Amino acid sequence: MLDLIAAKREGRAHAPDELAFIADAAAKGTVPDYQLSAWLMAVCLNGMSEKETAGLTGAMARSGAQLDFSRIAKPKADKHSTGGVGDGISLALAPLAAACGLCVPMMSGRGLGHTGGTLDKLESIPGFKVRLSPEAVLAQCESAGVCLFGQSEALAPADRKLYALRDATSTVASLPLIVASILSKKLCEGLDALVIDLKAGSGAIFKTAKEAEALGRALVKTAGLLGLKSAALMTAMEQPLGRYVGNALEVRQAVEVLRGETSAPDYRECLLALGGWMLHLSGLAKTPEAGAERMQAAIDSGEGFKRLKLIAQKQGGDAAALDNLDLLPKASSSRVVTAPRAGFVTALDARKVGRAAVFLGAGRDFAEETLDYGAGLRLEKKVGDRVAAGETLAVLYSSDDARLRAGEAEFLSAAAIGARRPRRAPVVLKVIRGR
Amino acid sequence: MLDLIAAKREGRAHAPDELAFIADAAAKGTVPDYQLSAWLMAVCLNGMSEKETAGLTGAMARSGAQLDFSRIAKPKADKHSTGGVGDGISLALAPLAAACGLCVPMMSGRGLGHTGGTLDKLESIPGFKVRLSPEAVLAQCESAGVCLFGQSEALAPADRKLYALRDATSTVASLPLIVASILSKKLCEGLDALVIDLKAGSGAIFKTAKEAEALGRALVKTAGLLGLKSAALMTAMEQPLGRYVGNALEVRQAVEVLRGETSAPDYRECLLALGGWMLHLSGLAKTPEAGAERMQAAIDSGEGFKRLKLIAQKQGGDAAALDNLDLLPKASSSRVVTAPRAGFVTALDARKVGRAAVFLGAGRDFAEETLDYGAGLRLEKKVGDRVAAGETLAVLYSSDDARLRAGEAEFLSAAAIGARRPRRAPVVLKVIRGR
Repeated sequence: MLDLIAAKREGRAHAPDELAFIADAAAKGTVPDYQLSAWLMAVCLNGMSEKETAGLTGAMARSGAQLDFSRIAKPKADKHSTGGVGDGISLALAPLAAACGLCVPMMSGRGLGHTGGTLDKLESIPGFKVRLSPEAVLAQCESAGVCLFGQSEALAPADRKLYALRDATSTVASLPLIVASILSKKLCEGLDALVIDLKAGSGAIFKTAKEAEALGRALVKTAGLLGLKSAALMTAMEQPLGRYVGNALEVRQAVEVLRGETSAPDYRECLLALGGWMLHLSGLAKTPEAGAERMQAAIDSGEGFKRLKLIAQKQGGDAAALDNLDLLPKASSSRVVTAPRAGFVTALDARKVGRAAVFLGAGRDFAEETLDYGAGLRLEKKVGDRVAAGETLAVLYSSDDARLRAGEAEFLSAAAIGARRPRRAPVVLKVIRGR
Repeated sequence: MLDLIAAKREGRAHAPDELAFIADAAAKGTVPDYQLSAWLMAVCLNGMSEKETAGLTGAMARSGAQLDFSRIAKPKADKHSTGGVGDGISLALAPLAAACGLCVPMMSGRGLGHTGGTLDKLESIPGFKVRLSPEAVLAQCESAGVCLFGQSEALAPADRKLYALRDATSTVASLPLIVASILSKKLCEGLDALVIDLKAGSGAIFKTAKEAEALGRALVKTAGLLGLKSAALMTAMEQPLGRYVGNALEVRQAVEVLRGETSAPDYRECLLALGGWMLHLSGLAKTPEAGAERMQAAIDSGEGFKRLKLIAQKQGGDAAALDNLDLLPKASSSRVVTAPRAGFVTALDARKVGRAAVFLGAGRDFAEETLDYGAGLRLEKKVGDRVAAGETLAVLYSSDDARLRAGEAEFLSAAAIGARRPRRAPVVLKVIRGR
């Protein structure tokens, strides 16, 4: 290990067997943390080549169990999002994609800071279980064509170890390490295709399109080197996606979209674009556009919503709460925020709205915090909408009055009203294709 | 700590209180090793300014106990060597400098790899103790004017911790960290002056004069910022210093020099130059040359040798073995290496001769190895000497015949004989003065 640290310190490239040694050592704990962290910092500062990144990613994927889908003939596809605010797309996308004929083993994470996490949103459905064994995931993918689950200890243990160390040593911000962490988990799923939702804007990890694009290019390049078809869709995250921010509220958003009831065109556009690419890359649609049409058809036929209820039922959740959304958790108090003056909404800073949701109880600042599943915001107006003075901008929900006040102050700092209607920005900013 | 790691990863400078926090955390173990090692790697790759280096050095020096010399009026001076082969200068320099009126609290280390260590050489004198408490060091400096001792757990504990981590994470090769490690220990000694023996050549840590000079400049600059007078003498380490390599053999070398018996002009020149600067910087000699003359006078008068015997006696060693060198440990076997052809010795690669000494049992490859105190080499010929075919080049000593054979092979690879007499290189290559 000492030699490998020295090599990376001097900016030399690692051979595949060296990367396999490191991934294996991280998974098994055979190298001390202080050596791994020195190596991580050297990678952070001296980088890795595309070949090295692919080598590390593959080695991390092989550091634990693999999902064996050989019994399932359908193409397997998943989506990964770099995280945003109101980004509950997975809740609608996974069942829709399955309804369109894909097998969707969707591994998700929890929320931290101003961004939400799919697992938390799912757990706001009473009884819903996200901790599943690899065997249970396989069985459900076979019977329901789709499973929504958390990273298990068995899959990519090297990533769990290295991620925890990166988090504790300020070595998170390294492109090759981010790529390896994202893709190693996905590679364990035995996918045919992966679509990456690359958020760009104030509410995303990457604030600028340039940074997001660099990650997207590295992801599709590395996936390609490892034989995984992929595309990265850079999507807007200057304001929250859709109408809702919060856990049960984002379940509501997904249900409304799947029922065709929604008034959240940006959420629907993002959903259809990602789904269209999943179907296209998997060979089930000739073009991404044709894929998006199939997704829309699965909304219109009700097949997508039916599949979401099947998932809930299979994973111990109260499917009845999806038919009657009043059965979802609700916050005990709410507060209406109104426009201080007439004009157009010119900004709804996604990061600040995300912070407001955390203040309201919908998110967490540290991993152990408990959530108020009903807490969050309903955005009555979005960027570009005209408002009258005193008209409702948003409704805030929380079970704690002090939190309501803090959330309101933060929300007000996020919203801007101006005299001129701002230019409407596209939802999908760019598509980065894999090979 | 996370913020400090991030700052250094991004190449930002640390404030003095931040460096104090890190030194304190290293000394007390209040920050996990994996965070310290990530920070060390960031320092290794992004560097530190002169001000930061001084801040870290001072903070590390203050991380534990200090030697309080307020009772001793004499100027206090010490020498630090960056390490070489046959470099037993301290054994003669400490008593000579004390005989010239300095107080010399000389903290030394052990040998590792091809370089020897003063503590090992001292321990080859039967009974000699180098593990002394700070109180014992102070008492002996008061009564004998000089003490030769190892780094105690009480002094600069931050350096012990950080050095061990650097060794285990390939972060040794960082100029600011090297400077902080060397000087933090010396600053605990409450010195008025420090002379640095900056070895340059095959047997030194730094092979080139350029690298050695960079370290020398950083050392005297940092010492100056911390109020310590210093000078760095760059000295030759292409071939071993003096006639002997090995522990008891280098004690013999020191005794021969102090008795005025020696035929090791390079050793004597290095000794007088370093001692001259110690006396000059401490204010006991107007010029380094005048200081060197005082050192020579203390050899001629026998005061230096008397002081060495006093040290041995004070530290539990057999002073009689210094009068009768046959009482020092001896290896049970020896082997004479002769010149394969006539000519001039054109090279005696110091690193390889050092390796030969390790093979013979005089050094160690890992910290736990035990030493054969009598093992080593006596160099009959040095670079520039004329040899006849079959004439003795060196005598090798070891208590193990296999080691003798290995040492001989390595020694032969170190020595080169050519037709032309090489240019005689100076011993002191350059002097780098502090402010």
